[in-house]
Amino acid sequence: MDTKIRIGIVGYGNLGKGVESAIAQNDDLELAGVFSRREPGDLKVNSNAPVLRLNEIEKHVDDIDVLILCGGSKNDLPEQGPALSKLFNTVDSFDTHAKIPEYFEAMDASARPNGKTAIISVGWDPGLFSINRLYGESILPEGATYTFWGKGLSQGHSDAVRRIEGVKGAVQYTIPVESAVDKVRNGSQPELTTREKHTRECFVVLEEGADEAEVERAIVTMPDYFADYDTTVNFITEQQLKEEHSAMPHGGFVIRSGKTGEANNQVMEFSLILDSNPEFTSSVLVAYARAAYRLNKSGEAGAKTVFDIAPGLLSPKSAAQLRKEIL
Amino acid sequence: MDTKIRIGIVGYGNLGKGVESAIAQNDDLELAGVFSRREPGDLKVNSNAPVLRLNEIEKHVDDIDVLILCGGSKNDLPEQGPALSKLFNTVDSFDTHAKIPEYFEAMDASARPNGKTAIISVGWDPGLFSINRLYGESILPEGATYTFWGKGLSQGHSDAVRRIEGVKGAVQYTIPVESAVDKVRNGSQPELTTREKHTRECFVVLEEGADEAEVERAIVTMPDYFADYDTTVNFITEQQLKEEHSAMPHGGFVIRSGKTGEANNQVMEFSLILDSNPEFTSSVLVAYARAAYRLNKSGEAGAKTVFDIAPGLLSPKSAAQLRKEIL
Repeated sequence: MDTKIRIGIVGYGNLGKGVESAIAQNDDLELAGVFSRREPGDLKVNSNAPVLRLNEIEKHVDDIDVLILCGGSKNDLPEQGPALSKLFNTVDSFDTHAKIPEYFEAMDASARPNGKTAIISVGWDPGLFSINRLYGESILPEGATYTFWGKGLSQGHSDAVRRIEGVKGAVQYTIPVESAVDKVRNGSQPELTTREKHTRECFVVLEEGADEAEVERAIVTMPDYFADYDTTVNFITEQQLKEEHSAMPHGGFVIRSGKTGEANNQVMEFSLILDSNPEFTSSVLVAYARAAYRLNKSGEAGAKTVFDIAPGLLSPKSAAQLRKEIL
Repeated sequence: MDTKIRIGIVGYGNLGKGVESAIAQNDDLELAGVFSRREPGDLKVNSNAPVLRLNEIEKHVDDIDVLILCGGSKNDLPEQGPALSKLFNTVDSFDTHAKIPEYFEAMDASARPNGKTAIISVGWDPGLFSINRLYGESILPEGATYTFWGKGLSQGHSDAVRRIEGVKGAVQYTIPVESAVDKVRNGSQPELTTREKHTRECFVVLEEGADEAEVERAIVTMPDYFADYDTTVNFITEQQLKEEHSAMPHGGFVIRSGKTGEANNQVMEFSLILDSNPEFTSSVLVAYARAAYRLNKSGEAGAKTVFDIAPGLLSPKSAAQLRKEIL
């Protein structure tokens, strides 16, 4: 084994904790430090990695090969990403689909002139699901692609609800509409609107004195996140939230239904059943950190997405070993 | 649209016909010619592409951007591959898993010094299934990977049976053992031998005077293909073969069952349900021909596998368009 790849974590929420435990599953990686806005003395991490001040991160440019940015897409990454990818190779899970092109440009403009590699929007969607959409439409050009999520708790959407004024705590579940799924599996290639495919269900704890109607309106009208869906908002107590909504399961599937030759049906499907959504997303981030390191070593600077990353770069095994063992 | 990518087909069996029809589904590709050992006058193809002599293929080096090699892995590709990848960029579906490393080396030695790009072992297994095995073990390092095939007709195995002396026609079905599949889906990560996962069933038409027992022995003891499986051999008439075994369905699934964090189960699955196995394999070959063309244009010579190909290279869309539309 060569020297280990040194990973830094920025932000120690569910995703940061997941990255910490995923790194421990990979012999070629080591956790060099956890960076947080919190005072180092106030933050206890699960490993024995040092806790460091985010505002002093530039002191550590020589100690870290890849930074994994574990902040949220709405408020953290749009600022942190471009600032940190000037100094470090980065991997993040930016997941506001509609704003990816603009985020990509910002990351490319900061990383490329500084010789850094920034892989954005890594995880399962965007991420593995995106790759499967791409394989599907590239291999079966005459067909239709369907993505269904859930039933599961969405980190990004829960986070968005939590940032609304008056919200003390919240979780959001995404639920596929069964009748729509059935139509797709039958190979009938139905046309489905966003609203017909999924519903969204929120469980919200209010701050004292907050207005139910106002919070509900802020949720259901939120662009990108909720405006295009039928959303149900349930108000619950803090104890209910803790007791009934602490697990973070998720999953879903991407189906490409296409035709070849005279009229042969061909169906490709990728599916995930996840006990822990953040831990799985973290595991994907960690595999792509290995790719970021290798790409940067080979001189590939600038912003990248999962579409730009050859699968072999994710594995600790050599190309020859992969050909022999799993091709 | 830029100039179309000019594709040549070598060999006009099921795979060659599938490639021909897949090219017609892609606006950025055109079929420049079908190369065959047969006399051009004796071979009628479904499109209006020219039929050309394989032994004069070197005359066409300037007319073709990528050759898709549609011969068999047992007798055709080991000779054709290294010979043709000296002259052309190539894509093939070499599928004798155990011999991939040696085939890769032969293709690399012929393509690289001549500035050509040769993508080997493309299809769904090896191919898309391999990619999913790689994603699975790279993202969930603590876990187990399972590949199941069928129920379906295997081209490679049928071909291997047909090459046995005394065999006039044959098909081979691969059948997953249901009890094994159930164990895997339950997340119990069982250890399964090759023999416990699948059975193989052959339907064989003998040449006149051929010896049943001898043919059966030749099948069930064939290394790589049958020796490690429980194989059933049924002898049928030519008419039965035609009437009951002409369709070429296949499918299967790759499952990665892993654990993250304390003990959270995470299950990734990729599955295919194919009405026509050769047409689907052909569709994969055609998408990778696009990648071969682009890699070669960017100076990436030598042998490659699906592990070396970034997903975005398969799509006719630009990187910016992919980020905007399907990431």
